[in-house]
Amino acid sequence: MTDSWATFGADLHLDLSTGRGLRAGLTEALREAARSGRLAAGTRLPSSRSLAVDLGIARNTVAEAYAELVAEGWLTARQGSGTRVAERARPRRTQAAAGAARARGPARRGPSYSLQPGSPDLSGFPRAAWLTAARRALTNAPNEAFGYAVDPRGRIELREALAGYLARARGVYADPERIVLCAGFVHGLTLLAGALRARRVREVAVEGYGLDIHRDLLAKAGLRTRPLGVDGDGARTGELGGRAGIGAVLLTPAHQFPTGAALTPARRAAAVDWARTTGGLILEDDYDGEFRYDRQPVGALQGLDPERVVYLGTASKSLAPGLRTGWMVVPAGLVEEVLAVKGLTDWTSSALEQLTLAEFITSGAYDRHVRGMRLRYRRRRDELVAAVGGRVGVSGIAAGLHAVLDLPEGVTERSVIQSGAWQDLALDGLSRHRHPEADLPPRAALVVGYGTPSDSAWAPTLAALSAVLP
Amino acid sequence: MTDSWATFGADLHLDLSTGRGLRAGLTEALREAARSGRLAAGTRLPSSRSLAVDLGIARNTVAEAYAELVAEGWLTARQGSGTRVAERARPRRTQAAAGAARARGPARRGPSYSLQPGSPDLSGFPRAAWLTAARRALTNAPNEAFGYAVDPRGRIELREALAGYLARARGVYADPERIVLCAGFVHGLTLLAGALRARRVREVAVEGYGLDIHRDLLAKAGLRTRPLGVDGDGARTGELGGRAGIGAVLLTPAHQFPTGAALTPARRAAAVDWARTTGGLILEDDYDGEFRYDRQPVGALQGLDPERVVYLGTASKSLAPGLRTGWMVVPAGLVEEVLAVKGLTDWTSSALEQLTLAEFITSGAYDRHVRGMRLRYRRRRDELVAAVGGRVGVSGIAAGLHAVLDLPEGVTERSVIQSGAWQDLALDGLSRHRHPEADLPPRAALVVGYGTPSDSAWAPTLAALSAVLP
Repeated sequence: MTDSWATFGADLHLDLSTGRGLRAGLTEALREAARSGRLAAGTRLPSSRSLAVDLGIARNTVAEAYAELVAEGWLTARQGSGTRVAERARPRRTQAAAGAARARGPARRGPSYSLQPGSPDLSGFPRAAWLTAARRALTNAPNEAFGYAVDPRGRIELREALAGYLARARGVYADPERIVLCAGFVHGLTLLAGALRARRVREVAVEGYGLDIHRDLLAKAGLRTRPLGVDGDGARTGELGGRAGIGAVLLTPAHQFPTGAALTPARRAAAVDWARTTGGLILEDDYDGEFRYDRQPVGALQGLDPERVVYLGTASKSLAPGLRTGWMVVPAGLVEEVLAVKGLTDWTSSALEQLTLAEFITSGAYDRHVRGMRLRYRRRRDELVAAVGGRVGVSGIAAGLHAVLDLPEGVTERSVIQSGAWQDLALDGLSRHRHPEADLPPRAALVVGYGTPSDSAWAPTLAALSAVLP
Repeated sequence: MTDSWATFGADLHLDLSTGRGLRAGLTEALREAARSGRLAAGTRLPSSRSLAVDLGIARNTVAEAYAELVAEGWLTARQGSGTRVAERARPRRTQAAAGAARARGPARRGPSYSLQPGSPDLSGFPRAAWLTAARRALTNAPNEAFGYAVDPRGRIELREALAGYLARARGVYADPERIVLCAGFVHGLTLLAGALRARRVREVAVEGYGLDIHRDLLAKAGLRTRPLGVDGDGARTGELGGRAGIGAVLLTPAHQFPTGAALTPARRAAAVDWARTTGGLILEDDYDGEFRYDRQPVGALQGLDPERVVYLGTASKSLAPGLRTGWMVVPAGLVEEVLAVKGLTDWTSSALEQLTLAEFITSGAYDRHVRGMRLRYRRRRDELVAAVGGRVGVSGIAAGLHAVLDLPEGVTERSVIQSGAWQDLALDGLSRHRHPEADLPPRAALVVGYGTPSDSAWAPTLAALSAVLP
């Protein structure tokens, strides 16, 4: 292979048009090549400099992709020996992972155990209660529910159920008239990005730590993201005032992702003041607002000014991402603009699914489910703190499904993540959530999604984590 | 109001950014103004010329919107008296329509009875069998099914079930690897339009008669549509050869919409020859391929050349549009390009819905349902022909859920549609499905969707139709 580096780039089947970003595309292609054996274990890769020249991209992009794959355990990097494909025991696969592997494509393959954040415990899905709701919904649905959607906002039954729930549980001012259903947060943010572009907004402030897929989505829609500082009080919304040209800000006020802080009242007020003064919009990502353990619920920011805040919620954390259901509560003046982007077709989940969720909420099953899961996650959180709290700093634990574990000085994220990979445990580092332009102090930490494992996998997963921590 | 015509355009709250087209937007705004009473009955509207000047649009656009609303019964046009808002009894509403009316937005409001094409009989949705399938799907689903989608093509279970069904029932070469699930035909066509644009295709041939929403969708994606002739043998695919620059053709081979012809073998061959010679793609819209009555099933065109034909199917006619489920069988070389457009998020219906449909198909319930509905529609078709066949020409009846009724000479579509509106019956004319640039002989006809009414509404609907025909 060493004599064919000239075609190595082409061999990677790099698709630079996917919008996933060069680094992500390159990382995926290399991972796939290592996984499939097309790059045999022990193979030495070209230097980042020469691959960069070969592909016509920045050397940093290649170096970062290599580093990520070293962190994941696919590659090894040793002084004097270059970067090589790791000798790697085929990880045991769970049944789910085997099913996933069968399905080709950009799948989330990998270790048997995972503490990567972003997923609820899927084994907790309330199958029986959901079926009961589905039966009632099917029995009671008017015939027209089976037809083409009449209202581009989604079924009125679900919007009414959500209005009641959000007002009660999250302090949201939620008239059903201004609720727009969507197929999850990403779909909602896509619609909002389109509406912002139509208003000729060019820049959106985001939290300095946050999800890269959200930043990438905004960038793809033509919106430049500008990072705010983040500290123990949440995003530094006071920085908004000093920046001209920003048309909106994306925030996670209830539980900053990933650092876990709750946005303080003063910073909430600062955000709303900025929006009122400049006419800007606040996009409130309330992804896990249901799960709060140690203190009074933190209400939604939207309640402070429903005309300046778009509230975004989702069933992905409280129930299951597979439902593809989310909701937006939109300022009255923005509803038509959002619907103009949403277009002719109703992309939300099926009418039956919407009616089932409406029934699930109004029957009280949703509250019961959330209560039960809250207990489960709280127990795990307590066990996590008990297991590792003496060795690492644990924060962001008052709410949600994940915690941040600060590593001792001298220990790198990469080394711990690599140890995890060799222990068949997928881990996530804080630094990958950092906005590339963010002005933040260095911080080596893990973002531990303790909601992710199934109940039966929780104990061995926690044991594996404990084993890899320094 | 007559002294304020200068602001009439603004008063209409015309949103020209919705992509629905100027005429559709203007029609909707005027209809809404008449419906809501904002334009009182008897109000005289400005001339089409002066409103066109006021809005800065073409006079024809205004004239066409007026004509459509006259046809629907919202406006009246009398020689010497100009165009006025009609004095109009509030139509009786079905329960469904009342529910729809409660939901604001671009709703399909209107008469109690409808023979407009495009919908199956929603009262025929197999609620009990669907619930059985949902129960099995919920019981058997692996936990990972509740998580984020692993494969951007959609659940493998449904793709496998569809591959078997489509091969058996429609003669489709349908490897699950090349099936991409989508949220109905419009979503599928949107994805394909994006993939075509990425290939730098600029022009797509369409049938001279076809759905305007499909043409509008293509236009919005930056693809110019070029009409083919349509006659009793279907679309004149031989015309493709003489036109340079066309990258794809959208066809309804099994049952031309709306004329109802089946594409002849010679014209199928001509389409495939064109595709092979030029590298073009055929997009096969098999919207009602399940419903065929009088002759041997007409297999899918895709079977002739799976590498040049994209097959698009949907549950919207065979089951219900409310499921938001469709499928594409894509040439192997195009799968990645389509997925690149589909993007990060899986916009298909929820995983549970996909698993339920998979179960519904593999258990045989889908075949049973289609058989039952075929008998129902066939009976209606026979009753339709018996009721009106002596007075008007009936064609396109060998298959599908609609027929074309040619009107006697001297009778206009508009007059019959208006009579229908006053009889509380919504009708659809053939001419509105005509491509604006199509070179087709004049033809006054109704497109009668006999699948649309519920079973209980069928008899009075047919009686109303009979009463309005000359």
